[in-house]
Amino acid sequence: MKTNSFFQKAFVVFSLLLLLNAFLSEVNAQVERVEPPFWWSGMKNSEIEILFYGKDIADYKVSTEEDVVITRVVKTENPNYIFVSIETKNLQPQTLHFNFSKKNRVKFTQAYELKKRKENSAAREGFTSADVMYLLMPDRFANGNPDNDSVEGLVDKLNREAEGGRHGGDIQGIIDHLDYIKDLGATAIWSTPLLEDNDKAYSYHTYAQSDVYQIDPRYGSNDDYKRLAEEMHERNLKLIMDYVTNHWGAEHWMIKDLPTYDWIHQFPGYANSNYRMETQYDPHASAIDKKYCEEGWFVKTMPDLNQSNPLVLNYLIQNAIWWIEFADLDGFRVDTYSYNDKEGISKWTKAIMDEYPNFNIVGEVWLHNQAQISYWQKDSKIGALQDFNSYCPSVMDFTLHDAIGNMFKEKAGWGSGMQKAYGNFVNDFLYPNTNNLLVFLENHDTGRFNEIYKQDLQAYQLGLTLIATTRGIPQLYYGSEIGMRGDKGKGDGDIRRDFPGGWESDEQNAFQASERTELQENFHSFTKKLLNFRKNSKAIHQGNLTHYLPENNVYVYFREFEGEKVMVVLNNNEEKQTLKLARFQENLNGTTTGKEILSGKQLPLNDELTINGKTPMVIQL
Amino acid sequence: MKTNSFFQKAFVVFSLLLLLNAFLSEVNAQVERVEPPFWWSGMKNSEIEILFYGKDIADYKVSTEEDVVITRVVKTENPNYIFVSIETKNLQPQTLHFNFSKKNRVKFTQAYELKKRKENSAAREGFTSADVMYLLMPDRFANGNPDNDSVEGLVDKLNREAEGGRHGGDIQGIIDHLDYIKDLGATAIWSTPLLEDNDKAYSYHTYAQSDVYQIDPRYGSNDDYKRLAEEMHERNLKLIMDYVTNHWGAEHWMIKDLPTYDWIHQFPGYANSNYRMETQYDPHASAIDKKYCEEGWFVKTMPDLNQSNPLVLNYLIQNAIWWIEFADLDGFRVDTYSYNDKEGISKWTKAIMDEYPNFNIVGEVWLHNQAQISYWQKDSKIGALQDFNSYCPSVMDFTLHDAIGNMFKEKAGWGSGMQKAYGNFVNDFLYPNTNNLLVFLENHDTGRFNEIYKQDLQAYQLGLTLIATTRGIPQLYYGSEIGMRGDKGKGDGDIRRDFPGGWESDEQNAFQASERTELQENFHSFTKKLLNFRKNSKAIHQGNLTHYLPENNVYVYFREFEGEKVMVVLNNNEEKQTLKLARFQENLNGTTTGKEILSGKQLPLNDELTINGKTPMVIQL
Repeated sequence: MKTNSFFQKAFVVFSLLLLLNAFLSEVNAQVERVEPPFWWSGMKNSEIEILFYGKDIADYKVSTEEDVVITRVVKTENPNYIFVSIETKNLQPQTLHFNFSKKNRVKFTQAYELKKRKENSAAREGFTSADVMYLLMPDRFANGNPDNDSVEGLVDKLNREAEGGRHGGDIQGIIDHLDYIKDLGATAIWSTPLLEDNDKAYSYHTYAQSDVYQIDPRYGSNDDYKRLAEEMHERNLKLIMDYVTNHWGAEHWMIKDLPTYDWIHQFPGYANSNYRMETQYDPHASAIDKKYCEEGWFVKTMPDLNQSNPLVLNYLIQNAIWWIEFADLDGFRVDTYSYNDKEGISKWTKAIMDEYPNFNIVGEVWLHNQAQISYWQKDSKIGALQDFNSYCPSVMDFTLHDAIGNMFKEKAGWGSGMQKAYGNFVNDFLYPNTNNLLVFLENHDTGRFNEIYKQDLQAYQLGLTLIATTRGIPQLYYGSEIGMRGDKGKGDGDIRRDFPGGWESDEQNAFQASERTELQENFHSFTKKLLNFRKNSKAIHQGNLTHYLPENNVYVYFREFEGEKVMVVLNNNEEKQTLKLARFQENLNGTTTGKEILSGKQLPLNDELTINGKTPMVIQL
Repeated sequence: MKTNSFFQKAFVVFSLLLLLNAFLSEVNAQVERVEPPFWWSGMKNSEIEILFYGKDIADYKVSTEEDVVITRVVKTENPNYIFVSIETKNLQPQTLHFNFSKKNRVKFTQAYELKKRKENSAAREGFTSADVMYLLMPDRFANGNPDNDSVEGLVDKLNREAEGGRHGGDIQGIIDHLDYIKDLGATAIWSTPLLEDNDKAYSYHTYAQSDVYQIDPRYGSNDDYKRLAEEMHERNLKLIMDYVTNHWGAEHWMIKDLPTYDWIHQFPGYANSNYRMETQYDPHASAIDKKYCEEGWFVKTMPDLNQSNPLVLNYLIQNAIWWIEFADLDGFRVDTYSYNDKEGISKWTKAIMDEYPNFNIVGEVWLHNQAQISYWQKDSKIGALQDFNSYCPSVMDFTLHDAIGNMFKEKAGWGSGMQKAYGNFVNDFLYPNTNNLLVFLENHDTGRFNEIYKQDLQAYQLGLTLIATTRGIPQLYYGSEIGMRGDKGKGDGDIRRDFPGGWESDEQNAFQASERTELQENFHSFTKKLLNFRKNSKAIHQGNLTHYLPENNVYVYFREFEGEKVMVVLNNNEEKQTLKLARFQENLNGTTTGKEILSGKQLPLNDELTINGKTPMVIQL
């Protein structure tokens, strides 16, 4: 019988593999690391450069048992590394075997798996302006598995009392609250990094990584991360990985045994970045300032990677693609994007987008000028002034964040109050793609909106309505939906407080409506109503934006897409305001009624519209 | 004899002309105005559109006695206007005669002179970054001719006591002080407008013009203006006219008898501009906001010209060219440049630059963002984002002016003090031509630098050094060279005070060194020394700029051109600072000595350079 025959064959193969494995495990002590640990057949870029690491491994000659074409072997000044590139075109999924020889005798063999790709993997669609991104810090969100709070071999142990200590949040904690996030109306999660960070302190932020092929065991396993993605996809949620190209932690195993002196930027060793990203395009910049910006280290514990070294660049490209393919990702957020070697980060980004043309990557370009931010967006004409193309589809609207600063506290004035929002959007002509701008009230590096506005629900309603209905991709920061505060002035710990209820021992569980305070519930229900409306509004996802010069601190704009039309009115004035609708006829176009989403009421739109003080209206026309 | 024959012929011609003139003067009462009043043969654009104005003049048929080709006759809804275009190609300088006929009978004839152009008129060179522009308000600078302080027929009479009244300054006053200006080191004068402004009040600023073919008689005559240019050119000084394309005064003779309803923007009649120039490029702008920006009037007394009407546009182009040719101008400053109809002002500018390819025009684009300012500069890639090219060679560096605001009062900080200057120049990549940016501490519409800095000589020294040694064209505002103050908060009058000594009756004559106070003399001598050095420094006129990230509020930059090298150090710190020179070696390149221009001292430039608090250094290497 067929089935019998299959099992017979399988048994034989299995037995042989066991034998082989036993044999290899002995001699393969020689190979301490293989990276990427496996790969996939059928990738567009079919050449893969595999790093083998082990004591004096460069002394061996490498070949494959399967006679696969080895396109390049690179040895460096450190004999513990050998980089072997192979051509995988036309190779089916299979296990390859690399023979390491001396004097024509195979001394040991390393198996290497080429997996089968997920169906349509290359066509995966990244996050878009139809999404709302929920940004969370895993250590501070929810502790789903208290067993991994401290882990042997990783120095930084649980210390929930310390603001900069590890609090125990993990991947299981995120999985446990996916229904909460979905119910809120978010459609994507950007978690700050989850890869191993064995820094002695402050490892909870996880931007100083020590192994970029492994989820930090205090968050869970690689398989847990994969499971997170699966659980999310079942709920139509997208997973966005926070990727760090610019630096690794000083505890990274390769930093401790550098493949090449110039794997990182050396002065020699550490020198701090001057953080002056302007030098990246300043035509007058001195070479020394440029160097210190781009090559200087972000902090002393984060050696700065040299992406102009092709080995480094290739390592980072493959690592990023590995995670997309392994964990089935829907996007990257790239840390300190504009601190990178400009050409390097552009190649990195292009390589990923070439592999996944519908993927999305949002770069952190923390700048205060639209032209400067635009510079870093794919196909920017501003970047093109210097023949630069980052290939990065999405950038962050930091000038909107700047504008939001105190906007909702300000009175009407030439450049104050709602004029600041208006004044931001007029510069949209500088961007190649405004739908791909991330819009946000705050993030994990800024003061919290609800701190700046002292938990003023009305300010939050205005702010959230603005970012949820203007062009771009709204990003919400965990906890703001229940009014969470956090003062940047008190340190990063304060803006990264634990979500109440994320820990078994918490007195309150704000994930549950029943346990929320009235104020928390007011924040939450508003957020939920608005985001769930947004979910289905094509006008807001991709509609044209037409806005009107604010009068008396009232900002009015319209979004229109294929006949669907939404009118947004933000009254930032303390007083009730009455608007003459004649002014808006180029958009209203005779419409005399609309449904106000936030109140659920049908509104007449004849001559005038009256709106209460400090109130938003979202009117479906 | 030849000479005799010449005089005989001349006598006959002269007698005939006298006769003809007597004849014409009678019948020509019909023609009240001819504009342009004359023209030149040999212009690149050889078609000229002549406006004849007179009671029911449109009832006549027009021809020329000389059988010149009439290319177009335009009559409007107002029968008092007729616009006649002729082709002047191949026409020698001569007097043409336009016959106005009814029923095939010539009723009257209008002579029209085609003059000979000045040699190389088309090749005239405008102001450049080798110049320093001295901005003055003629009514407030010097009264050279008290006889014209009040003039019959012009409403606004002398009233020196009133801040907004006419003070009597005039063209003769400027001529009288050309040696003073030259001695100071300025090489060009931008005088605010001098054309007739018969507004009832505030006519002294002269931006509400009532006759754009005539110098306001309270300033002098057209010939006086021509003489001013001649006197300036004898001294190698350049004359820049302040041209107003956007609006005329309500008292303009054409506004009182509109050629066409749409000669000006009508709502009907007046509506104010919203001044939101952003609508000119905002992709989200509502049509109504765009309209009110561009078509709204600057103020009620200044009807907004409709440059999208070809008659208006042509009138403005010809008027501008007429003044260049008539008065032998070296440049325009164009008022409220970015309030104009975008396409109209672009055509206007291009027409002038096509006629005079080496001329220069600086547009007032009072914006606060480099990309937005760049939008308006010739060949801007930012403008090109919307297929716009203004053709305006020079724009104003208002963001530098913003930065200078309180810069010299501020302590070191991430974005404060000298960082603000640095932060401005990093955006130079957005401009097509940074040498053609006007750089200034202040102008006639802003608070005076010496008010903001309370006559702090050190702040002035830092500020002037910055604008006189960075890239671009420095513009000085009259009186600042003697420390004059003026508070914008107290009204425009205060920032436009009379120059002491410009009036016979003044107690002090600060034009004379002997009469200056010690403080005035300190301001003056510093200005003179710096500007006169600048006059001959090609490195500063057109050299590469390399700057260094300020440290401790000390800003260092270099200008280099063909081996000439200048190092500028601005110490904005209260304390003496010592700089390690190793940091600047990419520019110093081993140079170990230099001459500091302001002190006149030779300086060693070995390991370190020490600079006193609040002090600039300009070091010729």
